[in-house]
Amino acid sequence: MSIKLTILGCHSATPRANAHPSSQYLEINNRRFLIDCGEGTQVRLRENKIKFSKISHVFISHLHGDHFYGLIGLISTFGLLNRQNDLHIFGPEGIKKIITLQLRLSQSWIHFEIIFHELTSAKSELIFEDDKVTVHTIPLSHRVYTNGFLFKEKLGERNLIISEINKHHEIEVCDYQNLKNGKDFVNKDGTIIKNKSLTKDPKNTVSYAYCSDTQFKPEITTIIQHVDLLYHEATFLEDKVALCIKTKHSTAKQAAAIAKQANAKQLILGHFSNRYKNIELFKEEAQTTFHNVSLAKEGKIYEIKNK
Amino acid sequence: MSIKLTILGCHSATPRANAHPSSQYLEINNRRFLIDCGEGTQVRLRENKIKFSKISHVFISHLHGDHFYGLIGLISTFGLLNRQNDLHIFGPEGIKKIITLQLRLSQSWIHFEIIFHELTSAKSELIFEDDKVTVHTIPLSHRVYTNGFLFKEKLGERNLIISEINKHHEIEVCDYQNLKNGKDFVNKDGTIIKNKSLTKDPKNTVSYAYCSDTQFKPEITTIIQHVDLLYHEATFLEDKVALCIKTKHSTAKQAAAIAKQANAKQLILGHFSNRYKNIELFKEEAQTTFHNVSLAKEGKIYEIKNK
Repeated sequence: MSIKLTILGCHSATPRANAHPSSQYLEINNRRFLIDCGEGTQVRLRENKIKFSKISHVFISHLHGDHFYGLIGLISTFGLLNRQNDLHIFGPEGIKKIITLQLRLSQSWIHFEIIFHELTSAKSELIFEDDKVTVHTIPLSHRVYTNGFLFKEKLGERNLIISEINKHHEIEVCDYQNLKNGKDFVNKDGTIIKNKSLTKDPKNTVSYAYCSDTQFKPEITTIIQHVDLLYHEATFLEDKVALCIKTKHSTAKQAAAIAKQANAKQLILGHFSNRYKNIELFKEEAQTTFHNVSLAKEGKIYEIKNK
Repeated sequence: MSIKLTILGCHSATPRANAHPSSQYLEINNRRFLIDCGEGTQVRLRENKIKFSKISHVFISHLHGDHFYGLIGLISTFGLLNRQNDLHIFGPEGIKKIITLQLRLSQSWIHFEIIFHELTSAKSELIFEDDKVTVHTIPLSHRVYTNGFLFKEKLGERNLIISEINKHHEIEVCDYQNLKNGKDFVNKDGTIIKNKSLTKDPKNTVSYAYCSDTQFKPEITTIIQHVDLLYHEATFLEDKVALCIKTKHSTAKQAAAIAKQANAKQLILGHFSNRYKNIELFKEEAQTTFHNVSLAKEGKIYEIKNK
């Protein structure tokens, strides 16, 4: 039960030699997701020694170039590497047309299936679920239709207390799964042994919320309440609040206010405008509102292991 | 009268940290052209300190990703930089649809006009001409419709020999332009002073041919005869000639044969497959057929100044 988040790119707008557009690689409960895919993401994946074949699901927040122009190149490379496994792409309506048009015109015959999940809802919805993880959208407010994503581990099975179980010779190994699932044990004579006396709570689950790009939108804090790790865009500082409103972005202080109101455990800031030479100022501004602030940086890894 | 060619990327297929896909920046007679635009080209332009605003014409050889996936990002950046000047894009049919679809879906409102020149002809044609330069297509043979491009300076005016002109007091300053244009001088009495006795030949023109991607196609040598600088793809060595035929690429030896048959002055090899760790082998193989061979490299500049 753990999260490992690798920052591949965390700067706004145009790629530069040492400032790459948005992309992140998330490992959560052994699931592997790519979140946004700005130009050059495939090179960032290589630099961070992340195996291309492990990426099964890609989540695109919105159709501004700095969040998806690297996707077609990555897909083409998957093709050249002779990928066979399905690739799931979640993103705004239109993403399918953009990708398939380019694959068709370049006559790229890929040997894997791309399953597009085009998003249109203005409300938070469950878009992915398996036995380990769920992913919900976080409707954001930007110049174009935009979603953040909330990744949550599912609660695992209860842990058996073997020393307690062994005190009851009538409990057999074939009963263990029911105990792990939380059921009480019922004897043949109808007496009940409470599950809580035989098992311990499962490990806590961890969660990660990705919120980029968006203007200040406190409504999302109900969706991401008590999130362990929150990435929230901070394109500007408060000195550029007018520009921030105009372009529908957030300041570092606003990102911190979201973290505080969401009772998040840790806040990562990113999507910095290249107007700012000193990125440390983002941390200083956010810390006036929220205590646990980190600045995203290409190659930085955030890990949460659960107890 | 000169050519300055900057290699921005010269490796095949997928971008890697130190091996970038095809792109070149050409200055010819003070015109500035971008040739192909693989993913990450805008970062290469920045690294090479090339001003984005100077690029007026982009030539795309074909619609394989390693030759054009960087174009949409570059155009978006032009928009963010508030470009006002027209941008001309020459490339295969379909390029307009790809670019405009992405601009529309990302709601990128650019303040400059993009003029698309979609190419469909199987024959060499003049696609650009002004008072200084011409550009012709070089029909290549690849898996998809592909053109190379031949960039040629136009012949300048003849140079006046003032010491000779001064011997003829009947020649006035207002006659000079006719002499520069190559006309003989005609006296009032009908006698003729030959232009060649009054002027010297203009400086030689220089030319550059870009041929990528293509299988071995000797027919192009008539189009690029006596070219000063020839870039020809060499994806493989002769050891992989079967793969070369299958994928419709060229070997280093085949590229050299084209250079020899075209009576080119210098050959640049590029588009190297990442199968080869030792790129020097390409030079060795080509030099068995053609003497003046250079290996393309990111950041390398080729200059020809004319006499």
